[in-house]
Amino acid sequence: MILHNQDNYELLNKYVRQINELLDKALDVETGYADYLLDAMKYSVTGGGKRLRPILMQESCKLFSDPVKELPYFMAALEFIHSYSLVHDDMPCIDNDEYRRGRKTTHAVYGETTALLAGDGLLNFAYETAARAFSVTDDYEKCGKAITILAKMAGIFGMVGGQALDVKCEKTGEELNEDKLLFIHENKTAALIESALMIGAVLGGASEEDTKKLMEVGSDIGIAFQIRDDILDIEGDFEQFGKPIGSDNENNKLTYVSLYGMEKAKTDVLMYSKKAQEILRTFPRRNEFLEWLVEELINRNK
Amino acid sequence: MILHNQDNYELLNKYVRQINELLDKALDVETGYADYLLDAMKYSVTGGGKRLRPILMQESCKLFSDPVKELPYFMAALEFIHSYSLVHDDMPCIDNDEYRRGRKTTHAVYGETTALLAGDGLLNFAYETAARAFSVTDDYEKCGKAITILAKMAGIFGMVGGQALDVKCEKTGEELNEDKLLFIHENKTAALIESALMIGAVLGGASEEDTKKLMEVGSDIGIAFQIRDDILDIEGDFEQFGKPIGSDNENNKLTYVSLYGMEKAKTDVLMYSKKAQEILRTFPRRNEFLEWLVEELINRNK
Repeated sequence: MILHNQDNYELLNKYVRQINELLDKALDVETGYADYLLDAMKYSVTGGGKRLRPILMQESCKLFSDPVKELPYFMAALEFIHSYSLVHDDMPCIDNDEYRRGRKTTHAVYGETTALLAGDGLLNFAYETAARAFSVTDDYEKCGKAITILAKMAGIFGMVGGQALDVKCEKTGEELNEDKLLFIHENKTAALIESALMIGAVLGGASEEDTKKLMEVGSDIGIAFQIRDDILDIEGDFEQFGKPIGSDNENNKLTYVSLYGMEKAKTDVLMYSKKAQEILRTFPRRNEFLEWLVEELINRNK
Repeated sequence: MILHNQDNYELLNKYVRQINELLDKALDVETGYADYLLDAMKYSVTGGGKRLRPILMQESCKLFSDPVKELPYFMAALEFIHSYSLVHDDMPCIDNDEYRRGRKTTHAVYGETTALLAGDGLLNFAYETAARAFSVTDDYEKCGKAITILAKMAGIFGMVGGQALDVKCEKTGEELNEDKLLFIHENKTAALIESALMIGAVLGGASEEDTKKLMEVGSDIGIAFQIRDDILDIEGDFEQFGKPIGSDNENNKLTYVSLYGMEKAKTDVLMYSKKAQEILRTFPRRNEFLEWLVEELINRNK
């Protein structure tokens, strides 16, 4: 199936809508006296994100099988983890950002206390949602593997670990070097993308070897994605990008661009993306939409 | 096996030591540039807690079988969840406590930013540790059930939900009534204790019915435990209790004692504990240590 660009955009928008519905449905619960917190959690999740991670998970699964019934639970779970990380990242004691994706951040609307608890609530809710896959599955071992990847990539060996070094360098002025920057990008950004692709693969029934290949793809896409983000922070447009332009510079944040210069940053985005696409093309079930999506990520303006 | 009090204390101390070793071992990992965060996580966990929840889990399992190999992973996981909740609870935007168990809280030592991330790191690490049980088990379904209970009881339908109402009442001065206080105690405190007993039961191979009975026991113990905490906040001794006495009153916090008076609080602690002990005595494999422990909890001074 070779799709034209227009078809791909339509498909992408359809998936985003489906995922938004999935997230809404997962959060359509009764929590009694905790409802105000649930509202803050819903606000945090429904900020119009790109839903990149769940889409990647779905498309990775399709490299090995038709979408399986466990998939939606893990797709929602991963997006909840991504959402919680943004809520806590934006808080006054970390980035102190008032805006994200063009609208007020959770703590700016609900206050710091509620934002802290909403983040905690979302992180827990992620695992709760993933665990629900056990109630529909015929393959408990597979779900066990998937939840293991989810937890590993989100925590201190993954996203939280990357955040830790990023925040430390920013707050203490500790000098950043190539090695540390790679550690931050690999963990803070790439880990959840690796997680998306690996979980999709595991749920689709991929071999260990193929799952590892998708980890590599995730790493490449994640690093390319982060470099593009650093580029957009300088060359982007507030209306499209949804964040104040130049905020990295203002926060004295060292980025790929400030370390290597704009030219190398742009070359390396391409290099990492090409590498990811090449690996993707080695699987017998080709997924042209996924290849297009990777291409799209390096040209994005938001 | 009928033990004398002295034997029970020795056993309790032995279990606490074993659990401390278990937690140390779980946290003995390499995290590269994130090591400073790992230090803060270790500090948060090794504050000399009672380790009540993992002990209850272990003893609940023993009602149905000898301790199983999956047990340590879930025991550590639950204690990590408990630890993260204390770290975030103590933060300036929630309780703003400088001391816990007689020593400085995590944010008081490491700063707010690191405390926030250490809490997030611990919560993730909890699920990561629990998920490790999948790598040793012969019964994936059982582990799936256990992790489902863990996530449900820790999140918005459990501990986080209870915290949400508690914090809201405190910050906004929203009036507390019996129904709301029960919601807070049931969720903020009892949920993790229910989780401990239910997971122990599930891992031990308990039936659905018996697992439900242990949920009830957990609810009773949890509520009794919280009322005792409220009593100790008034009548306790700083040296033993490890927290400033009267802080609830200072923070204008409504508690069981302020709502019902000291006399009823003391009667109800007894009532809930007796109820829990009666249910415990209905299981064919009797666990006298567990019965003693419940008794002990209502007489504790710290």
